[in-house]
Amino acid sequence: MPELRKDPVVGRWVIISTDRAKRPSDFLRSKVTQRGGFCPLCPGNESKTPSEVLAYRPESNGNAQKNGPGWSVRVVPNKFPALGIEGTPNRQAEGMFDKMNGLGAHEVIIETPDHNSHLALLPARSIESVLWAWRDRVVDLKQDRRFKYIMIFKNHGEAAGATLEHPHGQLIALPIVPKRVAEELEGARQYYTVKERCIFCDMLRQELEHPIRIVSENEDFVTFAPFAPRFPFEAWILPRRHESNFENLSSHQMIHLASAMKNLLLRYELSLDGPAYNFALHTAPPQESSLDYYHWHIEFIPKLTSMAGFEWGTGFYINPTPPEESARFLRETVVPGEVQRVR
Amino acid sequence: MPELRKDPVVGRWVIISTDRAKRPSDFLRSKVTQRGGFCPLCPGNESKTPSEVLAYRPESNGNAQKNGPGWSVRVVPNKFPALGIEGTPNRQAEGMFDKMNGLGAHEVIIETPDHNSHLALLPARSIESVLWAWRDRVVDLKQDRRFKYIMIFKNHGEAAGATLEHPHGQLIALPIVPKRVAEELEGARQYYTVKERCIFCDMLRQELEHPIRIVSENEDFVTFAPFAPRFPFEAWILPRRHESNFENLSSHQMIHLASAMKNLLLRYELSLDGPAYNFALHTAPPQESSLDYYHWHIEFIPKLTSMAGFEWGTGFYINPTPPEESARFLRETVVPGEVQRVR
Repeated sequence: MPELRKDPVVGRWVIISTDRAKRPSDFLRSKVTQRGGFCPLCPGNESKTPSEVLAYRPESNGNAQKNGPGWSVRVVPNKFPALGIEGTPNRQAEGMFDKMNGLGAHEVIIETPDHNSHLALLPARSIESVLWAWRDRVVDLKQDRRFKYIMIFKNHGEAAGATLEHPHGQLIALPIVPKRVAEELEGARQYYTVKERCIFCDMLRQELEHPIRIVSENEDFVTFAPFAPRFPFEAWILPRRHESNFENLSSHQMIHLASAMKNLLLRYELSLDGPAYNFALHTAPPQESSLDYYHWHIEFIPKLTSMAGFEWGTGFYINPTPPEESARFLRETVVPGEVQRVR
Repeated sequence: MPELRKDPVVGRWVIISTDRAKRPSDFLRSKVTQRGGFCPLCPGNESKTPSEVLAYRPESNGNAQKNGPGWSVRVVPNKFPALGIEGTPNRQAEGMFDKMNGLGAHEVIIETPDHNSHLALLPARSIESVLWAWRDRVVDLKQDRRFKYIMIFKNHGEAAGATLEHPHGQLIALPIVPKRVAEELEGARQYYTVKERCIFCDMLRQELEHPIRIVSENEDFVTFAPFAPRFPFEAWILPRRHESNFENLSSHQMIHLASAMKNLLLRYELSLDGPAYNFALHTAPPQESSLDYYHWHIEFIPKLTSMAGFEWGTGFYINPTPPEESARFLRETVVPGEVQRVR
């Protein structure tokens, strides 16, 4: 079973995944990219993944079967999970150190049956289905009281850490709240204690008043470059209405979130020449509901090659592109109303 | 002038370097690597860098001149600095946000005149000279009371963020203590408050007692994989003797630190096929002296390609190689007593 270990100085938990332990030779081999060939996420290969935990099959596919083709979105446990789903956390000491069982869920959200598509190119209604899958999985997993946090994220492109080409996101449910998340919650809570206002609501208000960092807006969502971004072209999508938990969003909001995501990803695609990117959903812990001080959102980071490295060693960020410039550039990118799929 | 901006939620300061502001097209261009051709860090090209702030020229080079060739180690201001050296921090608000002038020093430590060498291949006595240059620069810069922290780090190889081939490290002096450093200081202080012992001294004692994560040792330094490493083959070098500030180390220790660094870098070189890597000196703020609770050290992270991406989006780390395995592997790598330079 994998282990969760805590850095004794800064208190950061790390997954040490013993099950798929990599030896030096694995890293050397993995420099070679495999393209083409067999894809376990493609329709017809459903038996090559663990049994699905969720799938949407259009009603018109009357005779579609579980773990068969005919799905539009499919969620399966990761075949090489970083965490194990069975057992208890079993917290223990190793001398001065703290560790626990690497208990958790690790799932793959297959976003489309089409191997060669990707999120920016999917119709907004398909992205909406992906978002419903996020919600359905969160609602299901939050019933398991062992899980203190549920992370949903995506690595698109090899430079961003994707190891499979087929469009997919990931979900990790954890028995701890990750340090980064805990800091964000605590920072927001402290602000609320002083001001009795949500810091993200305040941020949104200020950004909209002087819209120099706004990328785009729709009825329910605002996309902007944050004031102190770590990376060039970093952008956040925030709901206009205060809400701490993603899973509480309305179906009306779901439609507009899908359209805001497609819009931002298309702007990246067109202005940055199809970059690799990461995004991560920032939402309140599943056991909390309706926190006054926290505001869920999604953070997007295009992975621009020349930026690698520096901050890994130092934990300190230098961003060569002011957010006012990256926002202006993304804002001025012309996004076609209806994009033709080009190969 | 560049700006330092603070994330209002988590309190992280970021350098927004307006001077060398990059537009999207710069990122597209920078995908192309330039190899060969003109190198501004090579001997003979001294006039192509800003005037040196430090250089070691062997006494035998009797007629060597400032900003001329004949040096073994040379430190120059970065030609495209992330921070500006003149002025005051001038802290101010931008609505709810906090910012200040991007005041600081950004220097390049040219480690050898030999363009094609690198740190692992240099004789230990040349690495020692590099370490003396670190110390001399810290001692000089700590007299400037505007600087609250001095970071020394190295990006080796393109994948680790190096933009010039010629072997070099970097120094950044800052008007703030970076968040990652502040957290480390605070974690160590809290432990000391409870235990009245240095947490790093305790760690060292435990690692040496059950040496499963030890990579190598010499008279003054211990190299080991930490209990909860973020990355595969992450390793730390700690001095055996408690000391919070790097610049206080003795000339005896300097010799052994050079040899410990060479030893670790050779192990990386031989076992991981010459990986790109980052390292960063972790030391107490220059205005502090002899803290009982903090212990300076150097953290090394090889950049193994398959690991990219994930943690950028989520701030959470999954490490596929347990430190006991990476330590054993590095420990068992045979390091020749005297390594012949092979091209």
